[in-house]
Amino acid sequence: MDVRAAVAHQAGQPLTIETVQLDGPRAGEVLVEIKATGVCHTDAYTLSGRDPEGLFPAILGHEGAGVVVEVGAGVTSVKPGDHVIPLYTPECRQCEYCLNPKTNLCQAIRPTQGKGLMPDGTSRFSLGGQPILHYMGTSTFANFTVLPEIAVAKVREDAPFDKICYIGCGVTTGIGAVIYTAKVEPGSKVVVFGLGGIGLNVIQGARMVGADMIVGVDVNPSKKAMAEKFGMTHFVNPKEVGGDLVNYLVDLTKGGADYAFECVGNVTLMRQALECCHKGWGECIIIGVAGAGEEIATRPFQLVTGRSWRGSAFGGARGRTDVPKIVDWYMEGKINIDDLITHVLPLEKINDAFELMHEGHSIRTVVTF
Amino acid sequence: MDVRAAVAHQAGQPLTIETVQLDGPRAGEVLVEIKATGVCHTDAYTLSGRDPEGLFPAILGHEGAGVVVEVGAGVTSVKPGDHVIPLYTPECRQCEYCLNPKTNLCQAIRPTQGKGLMPDGTSRFSLGGQPILHYMGTSTFANFTVLPEIAVAKVREDAPFDKICYIGCGVTTGIGAVIYTAKVEPGSKVVVFGLGGIGLNVIQGARMVGADMIVGVDVNPSKKAMAEKFGMTHFVNPKEVGGDLVNYLVDLTKGGADYAFECVGNVTLMRQALECCHKGWGECIIIGVAGAGEEIATRPFQLVTGRSWRGSAFGGARGRTDVPKIVDWYMEGKINIDDLITHVLPLEKINDAFELMHEGHSIRTVVTF
Repeated sequence: MDVRAAVAHQAGQPLTIETVQLDGPRAGEVLVEIKATGVCHTDAYTLSGRDPEGLFPAILGHEGAGVVVEVGAGVTSVKPGDHVIPLYTPECRQCEYCLNPKTNLCQAIRPTQGKGLMPDGTSRFSLGGQPILHYMGTSTFANFTVLPEIAVAKVREDAPFDKICYIGCGVTTGIGAVIYTAKVEPGSKVVVFGLGGIGLNVIQGARMVGADMIVGVDVNPSKKAMAEKFGMTHFVNPKEVGGDLVNYLVDLTKGGADYAFECVGNVTLMRQALECCHKGWGECIIIGVAGAGEEIATRPFQLVTGRSWRGSAFGGARGRTDVPKIVDWYMEGKINIDDLITHVLPLEKINDAFELMHEGHSIRTVVTF
Repeated sequence: MDVRAAVAHQAGQPLTIETVQLDGPRAGEVLVEIKATGVCHTDAYTLSGRDPEGLFPAILGHEGAGVVVEVGAGVTSVKPGDHVIPLYTPECRQCEYCLNPKTNLCQAIRPTQGKGLMPDGTSRFSLGGQPILHYMGTSTFANFTVLPEIAVAKVREDAPFDKICYIGCGVTTGIGAVIYTAKVEPGSKVVVFGLGGIGLNVIQGARMVGADMIVGVDVNPSKKAMAEKFGMTHFVNPKEVGGDLVNYLVDLTKGGADYAFECVGNVTLMRQALECCHKGWGECIIIGVAGAGEEIATRPFQLVTGRSWRGSAFGGARGRTDVPKIVDWYMEGKINIDDLITHVLPLEKINDAFELMHEGHSIRTVVTF
């Protein structure tokens, strides 16, 4: 079938809107009509060419929502008409990882997904007879896409696509890091480095679970008002702190953070996030993605005296199980997504979404089809 | 009273056996007759002068066992005649740390202990009218010492002092890191870097809790036989591994360690211990003490993909609660201490104990009075 897609032909070039061909779903796959998709920093990172694992030509996009149109042989968990969110971290419920309660990193289709291919080793997309690669197993920058059954989360049908698409990445990454990875307890003191989309979702996750003190750290004071709306209790601008930021944060939290989250991808902040944690039990959770080859460092004394350094991917969420719950929380008003979606554009203007992000004008831009 | 002690007058000099004066216990303190004490790397580190927090003149020693002789006002938990193990990590059961189940790092007397003083800010030891400092709150290189009540663990009376003194540091540090800090589960795959006294105790802790695979890593092949006796299932000599040690360990463990322990204090090994952990859930526990100012480093990707970097001090044990249990395990034959105590010397020969350690001839030397 013909589908309308934004194609990334090569690194560093704008996406081009084209009609490409999409094969139907094979065994274990589903065809989904994408109704809306967010544009995320990870798409921009790959498009920039800085992602060492980026492959081209490809159809990017990993933060979508849509409707199942057709299912391949053997598919039992969804049917045509079901509303779904594509999952770049699938949940097969069979592999060594899915069967270990300590991780969400299902590896069932990791090798082919990393190569831009479906699990059978081929692509469903093509242009003029030449294959176009999938991206993160999702390729939501097309109005139809094919996904493995294990990579779709079935969600309630009354939830608006142009809001819940954000749960496909940013919302779950931030809120999940709080509730699934860190397991923040009520009364906790939380420090959040970076008040972009991920940081704001960490903040509202911390508020949801009853944190007492939620400190936001950002060099941009214009982020303060929105962060306060999401639950931030204290704002710290490192540029305004006289002296050492870590000491300042330890003093502010009367001993250190119970949990600190790095939501930027800056290795210096990752160290500060660890070192501002409370002796004895503070946990630093790294969410941001650092540049290729960059390293984090600290004195091991920080760990021996009880701090721990951990990370979170897709918020520690198991997509098919947890994403539907997060959609419910949105529909019940427990979390705010509407204020995070600052721009909505048609597919034809998708390159503008990247511009808005690079210039810091948007929290999240959603593209509709 | 007069007591016989090994005094560290200054860094880099041998200890001298002298008769020093000891004041009796004040309120909340106990006088203990030390019957045996281990000589540990930490004593040697401080004596060497490399410990930036080392203070002189002092009476070193922190791995003892003995009998309560007298108690000061208000002491209720022990009485004269009780057998006890001194605790360099006390357990007040009242402070913010003791009341948080995530840590064992009681801070009740930390400031004075760090200064070589009792909680009231004075020393009980003196020589010719000049104060001699306490060390780690314990000063077990003397046949009598004064300790805060919260820094003694009451243990059963049929346990031999010249064996259970080792539970005051090394045994608890190694076994505790496995059971209290890491909480290793039956069936786990464990990698242990360094097969000295701590490493051997990590190994027997892992065996006790039912680990399936216990890999020991050491450049000294003479360590293999003893480690196997304690439960090591696989020995890896990095000098004999062709290629990358981390890759070798990941292959050997079929994916990586569930838990890796660094028992040396080498920052390169600390990195390898993290990176040989299993994606998704592997935990690296740092036990060894690195040199002043040394740093650990890794790519944050290691953490974001599910590994965690943590540390352990005194094995995560709460001394008054957990040390008596470990003494019971020894008496019940669950753990082996006898084979770890390779030398026993009288106090007069305590400097020989440091020699034996530096030359690698001993696992642990115990000094008796």
